[in-house]
Amino acid sequence: MTPSHLSATEAAAQIRQGTLSSVDLTKSCLARIAETDALIGAWAYLDAGQALAQAAALDQRRADGHPLGPLHGVPVGIKDIFDTADMPTALGSTAHPDRRPDTDSAAVEKLRAAGAVILGKTVTTPLAFVSPSKTRNPHNPDYSPGGSSSGSAAGVAAGHMPLAIGSQTGGSVNRPASFCGVYGFKPTRGQISRRGALQTSETLDCVGGFARTLEDVALLNDALTGYDPADSASHDRPRPQTLAGCRAEPPSTPKIAFIDFPPFNMTEPMRDVIEEVAGTLGPHLTRLPTPDCFADFLAGQHTIHTCEIARNLHGDPAIDPEHTDDLVRDLLAQGRAVTEDAYAAARANVAKAESFFAAFFQDYDALLCPASCGEAPLLSENTTGDAVCQKIFTFAGVPTLALPMYISKNNLPLGVQLVGAAEGDDRLFRTAQWLMTHWSQAGMGPIPKGTA
Amino acid sequence: MTPSHLSATEAAAQIRQGTLSSVDLTKSCLARIAETDALIGAWAYLDAGQALAQAAALDQRRADGHPLGPLHGVPVGIKDIFDTADMPTALGSTAHPDRRPDTDSAAVEKLRAAGAVILGKTVTTPLAFVSPSKTRNPHNPDYSPGGSSSGSAAGVAAGHMPLAIGSQTGGSVNRPASFCGVYGFKPTRGQISRRGALQTSETLDCVGGFARTLEDVALLNDALTGYDPADSASHDRPRPQTLAGCRAEPPSTPKIAFIDFPPFNMTEPMRDVIEEVAGTLGPHLTRLPTPDCFADFLAGQHTIHTCEIARNLHGDPAIDPEHTDDLVRDLLAQGRAVTEDAYAAARANVAKAESFFAAFFQDYDALLCPASCGEAPLLSENTTGDAVCQKIFTFAGVPTLALPMYISKNNLPLGVQLVGAAEGDDRLFRTAQWLMTHWSQAGMGPIPKGTA
Repeated sequence: MTPSHLSATEAAAQIRQGTLSSVDLTKSCLARIAETDALIGAWAYLDAGQALAQAAALDQRRADGHPLGPLHGVPVGIKDIFDTADMPTALGSTAHPDRRPDTDSAAVEKLRAAGAVILGKTVTTPLAFVSPSKTRNPHNPDYSPGGSSSGSAAGVAAGHMPLAIGSQTGGSVNRPASFCGVYGFKPTRGQISRRGALQTSETLDCVGGFARTLEDVALLNDALTGYDPADSASHDRPRPQTLAGCRAEPPSTPKIAFIDFPPFNMTEPMRDVIEEVAGTLGPHLTRLPTPDCFADFLAGQHTIHTCEIARNLHGDPAIDPEHTDDLVRDLLAQGRAVTEDAYAAARANVAKAESFFAAFFQDYDALLCPASCGEAPLLSENTTGDAVCQKIFTFAGVPTLALPMYISKNNLPLGVQLVGAAEGDDRLFRTAQWLMTHWSQAGMGPIPKGTA
Repeated sequence: MTPSHLSATEAAAQIRQGTLSSVDLTKSCLARIAETDALIGAWAYLDAGQALAQAAALDQRRADGHPLGPLHGVPVGIKDIFDTADMPTALGSTAHPDRRPDTDSAAVEKLRAAGAVILGKTVTTPLAFVSPSKTRNPHNPDYSPGGSSSGSAAGVAAGHMPLAIGSQTGGSVNRPASFCGVYGFKPTRGQISRRGALQTSETLDCVGGFARTLEDVALLNDALTGYDPADSASHDRPRPQTLAGCRAEPPSTPKIAFIDFPPFNMTEPMRDVIEEVAGTLGPHLTRLPTPDCFADFLAGQHTIHTCEIARNLHGDPAIDPEHTDDLVRDLLAQGRAVTEDAYAAARANVAKAESFFAAFFQDYDALLCPASCGEAPLLSENTTGDAVCQKIFTFAGVPTLALPMYISKNNLPLGVQLVGAAEGDDRLFRTAQWLMTHWSQAGMGPIPKGTA
């Protein structure tokens, strides 16, 4: 198999064994990028020489008998809102073309400490917000890859690299994962440090990862998590081991809940996929009515996101008219109009959401819902799609996993989302592995419906 | 077995399985302390209620199904130079009785993130330097436990807790380990962050651990290591997995070197132990002449230690006459007398030492030497013993492991030291495990020579 197509888990194992070099893997990724990126546009910054120099140094470290990290020699794409000491970090904005911080962000530090090749910076929507980026969906270049982690999702889907990191404040990890047909994981709030990443909302921002296999996205997550006193949301308790979660047997058959929340606004193909998954689950799925609080949580996410991003970007030239668009300016105006009382009420609802889901997951291993309303939107629609399927869970800080379940008749991916208990990230992976096994045993999987 | 006597590895496994609670383990440790500490004096600060509250919270987290860290529920003693947000940190000095920093040191953060109970603060010699502390050797209270990590070494030896952390600038981890008959490990420079620990020498200070089994000291080390940009010595490369090292088979029979360096000044009992180990190793041991550079490295350690500690403690009331003694004041005066040229020459020798050992360990898996000149000194000698057996290796930043090899006719422990290649900490543990297996198969072990 072409090295760029290997999973990260397999590539890392081969590098460890000495049957593949990091240089060959990185060259293969660079070749795949050279071949496809003119169409896809996943990269904000990429210097092939710099990536190969890192790979060569890692190969040398292995040859010298030094310890190898879990990602030794594996290229990872970095959303261009995470600071890198050796590459520019332009935040997706035309206002900051020369921005070049001195130090790595915590996530990049963790990746280097795990032995990864920092391949380059992937395209983000401007300031990780709602305006589309230049990136196209690798399944069909007329469609959006989603946002704001556009380049990370599209690059992983296109085989540019096995792993990439992104961030989510509304739905910027799990939605592009659904649109691009890859796995996306946003861990429990506070598991991964946000130090050195663009702060848009101190309450909601979180770091997440993309990969083409479930184990890979867990491998990446385990390398990223850890306590960091520099991040106000970080906590000093043990981290769930998500790769071990993938490999664990559920102690009893998982209990999965489904809530048909009308604002998820599922298209017919998405409803079909959800119903097929529900059919596969049979008696292990419980359909529940929509809890009253969901509407409050959804509204609370909007209040906090718009209010905090307006405050955080206040005075930043990136929001001047020549560097931004009406979509963003309208939302910032909404954020500035949020009263202190409305903000305090939304903050109080965060604690309510945490308690609600803590109680909810006493009874269920996971909540099933769509990872996007439907297929990716056309680029001509000038949107990266609706984050409604993620907002409640980002608000509550619970872990969410997008699973690439299906390719539609239009050759566009459709993902479902599994949501788990806070700090039960490992259990969520265990449940997801069980679900994917059931799904493939039932003869389903991410194949074009029309060609089945 | 009384829970306080369990290894950390076994206790953590039992807590994980639910056959032991952290509260019962902590109570058992507290009972052992209550029984013996009036004689030993290992504790600078201990609040039983606070320790039990941590243990109860950890038991509750397990009951709630939260993820468990590798040290979940296991009590760890903290040398009283490491800041703790919830306990005083008096640095062993009468000048700072009420010192109470707001935040945890990096090492304590890591332990909490691994699920440990922060049991309390162990006695350190004043400012982690040369003056004796109140702590006595648990094997015979007329003798010193060594220093500066006196309470950590003595407490682990006495069964107060399975694990403790200390620090080494000269020989403050491996020497007390030898005197108290426990394992002591100082990893490669830069593996564990020193943020929030008393800085005596930015070049030489390092964090290390104590335990009663080889696996335990590796388990502790793995929980402590990690990159931290706040520590100038910390590096962002992967960390060796030392517990995995303990459990790995050497790919070929280890090659061990021995250098009979006269300044190690071995007593007859220590020479006997080293010769018995050499006999056990047979053809796997190579005796080498003393390299010329060893004398320079030894002198360089003294120059840097005294110069940097004098600079770091400048203006600290702890070095005023009423809070210190002649031993310390004399060394600080020596440090202040170091010229810029002498300091620069010593710093240049650090790089030379790093290169020397990098080349040396191309040919050998480990260097064998004494972990102390001999048995612990009598308290009446007013010394914590000579750090000469460690200084060269602390200077070079290579990992060193003290192995409790023998109990002398006087019922005092004698340890040997294995030294390994920088960043080859896992290989060093693999070699040590192989040596200890050989040693016990040869019928040897830490039993009184007279009673064999």
